[in-house]
Amino acid sequence: MSDLVYEQQDAICEALEALDDDGGFQTDTWQHDEGGGGRSRILEEGDVFEKGGVNVSVVEGELSPEAARQMGGGEGVEDLSFWAAGLSLVIHPRTPMIPTFHANYRYFERGDGEAPGSWWFGGGSDLTPYYLFEEDAEHFHETLREVCDAHDPDYYPEFKAWCDDYFYLDHRDEARGVGGIFFDNLNDGTPDELFDFISDCAESIVPSYRPIVERRMDESYSERHRRWQTVRRGRYVEFNLLYDRGTKFGLRSGGRTESILMSMPPEVRWEYDHRPDSESPEAALLEVLREPRDWA
Amino acid sequence: MSDLVYEQQDAICEALEALDDDGGFQTDTWQHDEGGGGRSRILEEGDVFEKGGVNVSVVEGELSPEAARQMGGGEGVEDLSFWAAGLSLVIHPRTPMIPTFHANYRYFERGDGEAPGSWWFGGGSDLTPYYLFEEDAEHFHETLREVCDAHDPDYYPEFKAWCDDYFYLDHRDEARGVGGIFFDNLNDGTPDELFDFISDCAESIVPSYRPIVERRMDESYSERHRRWQTVRRGRYVEFNLLYDRGTKFGLRSGGRTESILMSMPPEVRWEYDHRPDSESPEAALLEVLREPRDWA
Repeated sequence: MSDLVYEQQDAICEALEALDDDGGFQTDTWQHDEGGGGRSRILEEGDVFEKGGVNVSVVEGELSPEAARQMGGGEGVEDLSFWAAGLSLVIHPRTPMIPTFHANYRYFERGDGEAPGSWWFGGGSDLTPYYLFEEDAEHFHETLREVCDAHDPDYYPEFKAWCDDYFYLDHRDEARGVGGIFFDNLNDGTPDELFDFISDCAESIVPSYRPIVERRMDESYSERHRRWQTVRRGRYVEFNLLYDRGTKFGLRSGGRTESILMSMPPEVRWEYDHRPDSESPEAALLEVLREPRDWA
Repeated sequence: MSDLVYEQQDAICEALEALDDDGGFQTDTWQHDEGGGGRSRILEEGDVFEKGGVNVSVVEGELSPEAARQMGGGEGVEDLSFWAAGLSLVIHPRTPMIPTFHANYRYFERGDGEAPGSWWFGGGSDLTPYYLFEEDAEHFHETLREVCDAHDPDYYPEFKAWCDDYFYLDHRDEARGVGGIFFDNLNDGTPDELFDFISDCAESIVPSYRPIVERRMDESYSERHRRWQTVRRGRYVEFNLLYDRGTKFGLRSGGRTESILMSMPPEVRWEYDHRPDSESPEAALLEVLREPRDWA
């Protein structure tokens, strides 16, 4: 798993750099207090990507009993020591015509990982458009469906619904974006089988997103589109700080703040009671966020 | 209390409008599902104030047992019905030379408010500068100290320390700003005595802030100052969404989202691992945020 996340980090950064003449990733490696560490790769002020972060962490330590309880999984596992490896990325393109992209794949193990229920995989991948291009949402979901179907025909429908449910802002009555897949505590198979699934998921990151970037990177946009994008990025911030379990758990448990909050968008606006005109493309997006669709 | 919060809302908005040639408040009145309602007054795109919200709510309803437990106070009070009245405001000036200002004063009562511990006052007032002008922080704290001292000599030191403690971002190891006062569950006196204290606090909002606005509104600033302000506003967002009990409770309990999130700054930036040069005025601010000072 450790090899996978580091290899995929390099592959993803290389693919993104190839799309952006002006964007190179900088690298920060860091140590975890209790053991292990990570590598954060950050791109800022690119031509295509306004901000992007691709983070790897491979850490070990001791859970607090409270944290162990909240984790879920591992019922009956007494050992509070853990080992975890994960890859996570958030890409905020400059143009409002390319969606923001997020993915995260991770493995978690308590004790020596031998006891039943003491290890699991989790992750997902989701898309947050500012303007809806149906073919983009379809391409994204179809890529994920193919990966899932190759392992278990139940995965895609289950993880698609889980994603719609997880990335939902109750206080706004809307989804964060057009979804994707999300799953946690996955251990209904052998470690090898599930590792293969996670590997395929991680390898699908670039093919799920690159064609969308290529299709939209040269579309023109105006101040109005940019404004809408920055207002919608406010919703992204609200989700990450109010709801996202990874963010909240990471910050509470003494994770590296800058690596966790690299997910924050670069430029964001809050306007009081902002409502797009009905019949506008902005209103069309909101409709889809309020009523998640089947895309694949 | 209901009269107080509505009167003070008008007085504060009038005082702020007098400072801003270009800024007028719009008004939204709204109903609470279970009873009562409120009035939100919002200013956007003013000349001096980039965004400001002054909100009144006077609501009643039924607490969930979970909410009642989290509230604190009212131990032994079985009645889950409540009545609450509050005034809250957040002012985000355009220039980075004027601090962001926040205040909130409220009364909360369970059942008929006759049982011991079934009612209390809470609130506070605090200042979030982007550049530190010591005379501004001193004026602000001295105004609050005078109000407190007129009622109880223990109030200011106790509520100043509580404020430093409450408005602290653990994940950043820094305070939100230069503090002020904060208190909750205040009922160690008669309702009349404490209402007088709260009235004086609310009436001190304008005199604590106006002289600072007047002193700084015409100072020049550059793109560099603006950039720092928008990065620091990101910390304000982090505090409000990750820590602030009022925001989290309000959103979870079905409060009016736009009135709660009117506290969000208008334009915000997140930059990866942003660090000001040592010896810079930006670094001087951080020093004070890491080591709260006595200002009065």
